[in-house]
Amino acid sequence: VLIIYLNGVYLPYDQARIHPEDRGFLLADGIYEVIRFYGGRPFLQVEHLDRLQRSADAVRLPLPSRDLFSRVIDELLTTNDLLSDDGTIYIQVTRGAYTPRTHWFPAGETEPTLLIIARKSAPMDPALREAGVSAVTLPDNRWDRCDIKSIGLLPNVLAKQAAIDAGAYEAVFVRDGRVTEGSSTNIFGVLNGVIRTHPADNRILCGITRNHALRLAAAQGFEIREEALTREETFRCSELFLTSTTSEVLPITALDGRPVGTGRPGPMTQKLYEAFQDSIAENGAANPAD
Amino acid sequence: VLIIYLNGVYLPYDQARIHPEDRGFLLADGIYEVIRFYGGRPFLQVEHLDRLQRSADAVRLPLPSRDLFSRVIDELLTTNDLLSDDGTIYIQVTRGAYTPRTHWFPAGETEPTLLIIARKSAPMDPALREAGVSAVTLPDNRWDRCDIKSIGLLPNVLAKQAAIDAGAYEAVFVRDGRVTEGSSTNIFGVLNGVIRTHPADNRILCGITRNHALRLAAAQGFEIREEALTREETFRCSELFLTSTTSEVLPITALDGRPVGTGRPGPMTQKLYEAFQDSIAENGAANPAD
Repeated sequence: VLIIYLNGVYLPYDQARIHPEDRGFLLADGIYEVIRFYGGRPFLQVEHLDRLQRSADAVRLPLPSRDLFSRVIDELLTTNDLLSDDGTIYIQVTRGAYTPRTHWFPAGETEPTLLIIARKSAPMDPALREAGVSAVTLPDNRWDRCDIKSIGLLPNVLAKQAAIDAGAYEAVFVRDGRVTEGSSTNIFGVLNGVIRTHPADNRILCGITRNHALRLAAAQGFEIREEALTREETFRCSELFLTSTTSEVLPITALDGRPVGTGRPGPMTQKLYEAFQDSIAENGAANPAD
Repeated sequence: VLIIYLNGVYLPYDQARIHPEDRGFLLADGIYEVIRFYGGRPFLQVEHLDRLQRSADAVRLPLPSRDLFSRVIDELLTTNDLLSDDGTIYIQVTRGAYTPRTHWFPAGETEPTLLIIARKSAPMDPALREAGVSAVTLPDNRWDRCDIKSIGLLPNVLAKQAAIDAGAYEAVFVRDGRVTEGSSTNIFGVLNGVIRTHPADNRILCGITRNHALRLAAAQGFEIREEALTREETFRCSELFLTSTTSEVLPITALDGRPVGTGRPGPMTQKLYEAFQDSIAENGAANPAD
């Protein structure tokens, strides 16, 4: 049985309960992170916890100590016997349960609700990775603070479902003619040999995997420009790919029903994926527990 | 002890629990309504339930029957001995608890989470109503579907708190130089004798009280134009007021630190407020239980 962490207590998944008047449930007044672990070792955990802090600061939500997060994550991986597994650690913090419901912050010191779940995840279907995935473009109708990793994900939910309904894997948001990001991924294109992606401003969530991919691309000697692609430019790209904590580096081989480049995963995407896998292996080797 | 309704069960408030992996908690994948009751009688309930249906349709969420809502509301008002009281009925519907968390909709038939709470509310401080309230303008940074009454309210929460921090009662959103609405209210101004308010498009939530106020204004013979005020125009308005289910019709007498008109509630706002109170009295008289 999966043991999870909720507000200071370790308990079986099925016994976890929150009050419906939690501000996370009533008002989407909360933030979250998803951290990947490989072979039981969290990947880029410091970067994820740094971003959680930035989100918390942006919505003025007090966080527990960094040390608490590390201890709970270690405990969940150990208790649930995940030390040789791959999976995800889900962290959510909300402004807690208060009555009555108000839009303004509760008076006095906030007692946030803190949920942490570590679970095994099935590996991605290799056929999907080999063939690449398809995506569809949709108008980006989200708010102006996409840089905050808030739980207010209804627009992303609706976009992802619209993509699924269209037989695609991901929805690619377009604002003012420019590609911002996917419903839960960052989007990259290779145009005239240069890797392009939207700059890390208020229009996108600055992905931890995005930044890692940019570092790996630089190490490969690839030319990079953090400048948004127009929708038209995406159709002239020789390669498109997406990055995310769970999808890693994944080729997009069809956009809006048209093949990208040759319609097969491109060489730069493949190189980046391999470099990504190498960096996972290094993460294992670098662990002092080895 | 307050009895509330949650997923088919009536239970004491403190015993109500949902699973943290409810999509309402994880993804803001849900909608809500707040209905006022006066003297134990729901006010404009049909209009509120109609809007709930529109929100549900927009996010593709199946709703229980209209009849269920009516029966639960009646039961909660009776059980909690609220039949002579004023208060609010809070309704929330989410896409339910599913594991694992996905952005896309759960497969198969959805079992929504349904929460209904009826509770007494304290009457508004008469001094506040007599003096009017102050408001501050803020950039409208919300998504493009403000017509959906979704629980994704973080932008509204942050705006309301910013208003409170500035010593004001409400935040007034401005997009492209035009007033859209308040953080949880609709905004009206009287310019050259004409009542102006933002049209009911995707940029605002079409308030039930907004529409009621427009009907009452028409019955008073007031001239009305559903055309957004620019921020500059608001400073030339002789009167400003807000409407909401809980605030009813409330004068705004200062905006961004400047007095509105004479700095006192205006005559048209006062007339509308009185007509509003009359319509509440009629709601009571029209009830077949009388």
